[in-house]
Amino acid sequence: MTAAGTFAGVLAPVATPFKDDLSVDTDRFVAFCKQLLDEGCHGLAVFGTTSEANSLSVDEKLDLLRALKAAGVPGEKLMPGTGTCALPDTVRLTRAAMEAGAGGVLLLPPFYFKKVDDEGLYRAATETIRRVEDPQLRIYLYHIPPIAQVGWSLPLVERLAADFPGTVVGLKDSSGDYSYTEGVLRRYPGFAAFVGNERFMKDALELGGPGTITASANVNAAALRKLYDNWQGAEGERINDAVCAFRRTLEQYPTIPAVKAIIARRTGDPTWQNLRPPLRPLPEEQAAKLYQQLDALAALAGVG
Amino acid sequence: MTAAGTFAGVLAPVATPFKDDLSVDTDRFVAFCKQLLDEGCHGLAVFGTTSEANSLSVDEKLDLLRALKAAGVPGEKLMPGTGTCALPDTVRLTRAAMEAGAGGVLLLPPFYFKKVDDEGLYRAATETIRRVEDPQLRIYLYHIPPIAQVGWSLPLVERLAADFPGTVVGLKDSSGDYSYTEGVLRRYPGFAAFVGNERFMKDALELGGPGTITASANVNAAALRKLYDNWQGAEGERINDAVCAFRRTLEQYPTIPAVKAIIARRTGDPTWQNLRPPLRPLPEEQAAKLYQQLDALAALAGVG
Repeated sequence: MTAAGTFAGVLAPVATPFKDDLSVDTDRFVAFCKQLLDEGCHGLAVFGTTSEANSLSVDEKLDLLRALKAAGVPGEKLMPGTGTCALPDTVRLTRAAMEAGAGGVLLLPPFYFKKVDDEGLYRAATETIRRVEDPQLRIYLYHIPPIAQVGWSLPLVERLAADFPGTVVGLKDSSGDYSYTEGVLRRYPGFAAFVGNERFMKDALELGGPGTITASANVNAAALRKLYDNWQGAEGERINDAVCAFRRTLEQYPTIPAVKAIIARRTGDPTWQNLRPPLRPLPEEQAAKLYQQLDALAALAGVG
Repeated sequence: MTAAGTFAGVLAPVATPFKDDLSVDTDRFVAFCKQLLDEGCHGLAVFGTTSEANSLSVDEKLDLLRALKAAGVPGEKLMPGTGTCALPDTVRLTRAAMEAGAGGVLLLPPFYFKKVDDEGLYRAATETIRRVEDPQLRIYLYHIPPIAQVGWSLPLVERLAADFPGTVVGLKDSSGDYSYTEGVLRRYPGFAAFVGNERFMKDALELGGPGTITASANVNAAALRKLYDNWQGAEGERINDAVCAFRRTLEQYPTIPAVKAIIARRTGDPTWQNLRPPLRPLPEEQAAKLYQQLDALAALAGVG
């Protein structure tokens, strides 16, 4: 944390484990959250895209928040995704996040209707803030147009940040277009623009960025933490090269199935490969190739 | 109905009324459903896109289903939209629809993740069918790629229809591309492919199509029913021209705000203009222009 209620560093959009009947495996989820913090994650962006959050019911998410609290996971480490298509669901989840003591929430815009205008999205955000009515609320706008299609435009980010200072405090940029993050960091110093891909983290840190919220943190947390702690100079270059090589390998596969395959391999627990439809496990031959590539990278790192 | 459990004719994706605090106005909803049946609708596709269904929580939808049943609206007239992003929600809603005696359900594919393959969507549908486990279940696949982005491809429709005969019995085509409906009607006679736009209804009826599920049915039900009952010959041409002129007028505006504006005007009740964000009411000057255009059409129809 750089300031009260403000996140910085490496956050994991925590993968959600499912049992073979596709029900949520709460115990495994809580254990995995603790493991990620032990491995160096600064925070847990539970219920992100990588978490298959939109494949979970609201009730399932409320149960998981309660389980995290009961297990003693510190609320200030949590940045749950709470944005849904339906205002009542968004409000209910956001309130539950506050009850769990969450340091912030990651707000996806309502994403069913397309070609909606900024005014409509502004109202969606303001109605959420007004109804949650909690001075502790810290919102990070979740911008992921490749998947949600609906995104937070830069003028809209500016409007919300100006109208709700201390409440709308940051964003996560998963657009794949670094110029969006860069635009925010240059124009609004202090507004916490996280990159959704660690390949842009070093550049963003140079501009005063807060860090990254990245799928890779589920499977490469220690290295990402090392990069965050040592991003400057020749050492930073070296770590950055390794982190980016890992990411580029991951990007050759569908992200969520690949992340779950890696966790399954590391834990020796094949149920980690369960995904809810419409997603499905990485085919065996692809998983084998991925493991081989990651082994080669690890060997290289060991030599260098 | 052309056969037990099979819909035919004109169905309305019923607009959902909201109070000024944006809560669902259940009484008004039930009354409007009854009115649409009185005006000639063969069925009610509640919880469609025009219903802002994805802006409603699952609990709100369950409440509305119970209210319809309590009010004596016949279950066999209902084709509720039950497809959501999350399998547990889809199953819960579909079961509730069955409990309300619904003659069918309209199944949107899970629409958060993009670029998912047909196999993943096939599993989403089959898991739903397996879990609902009700021999009375009749599924109509809801194909609306302009909004959901994710759609049911023709090969996938064929696979589901072949694997679940008597269960996957039809679809609604809101692609805007009539060749999709036409392809289904030509290749699978008996599979109930509804057009999502009445401008294609006459052509589809000629190919044995079942009819239309269209936003316009909220505000032009009587004329649509007249067309369905008299689509052949010169009389059919004349009614079709009027119906299409109405639709073309509507298409000059954002559909859902326009539909609600027309209902508000007819009922003299401005609360009908309430929409949940990210949608918002038609601006006054646009509404005035829309009313003027519709009045001109009505005058023309009166003369002709």
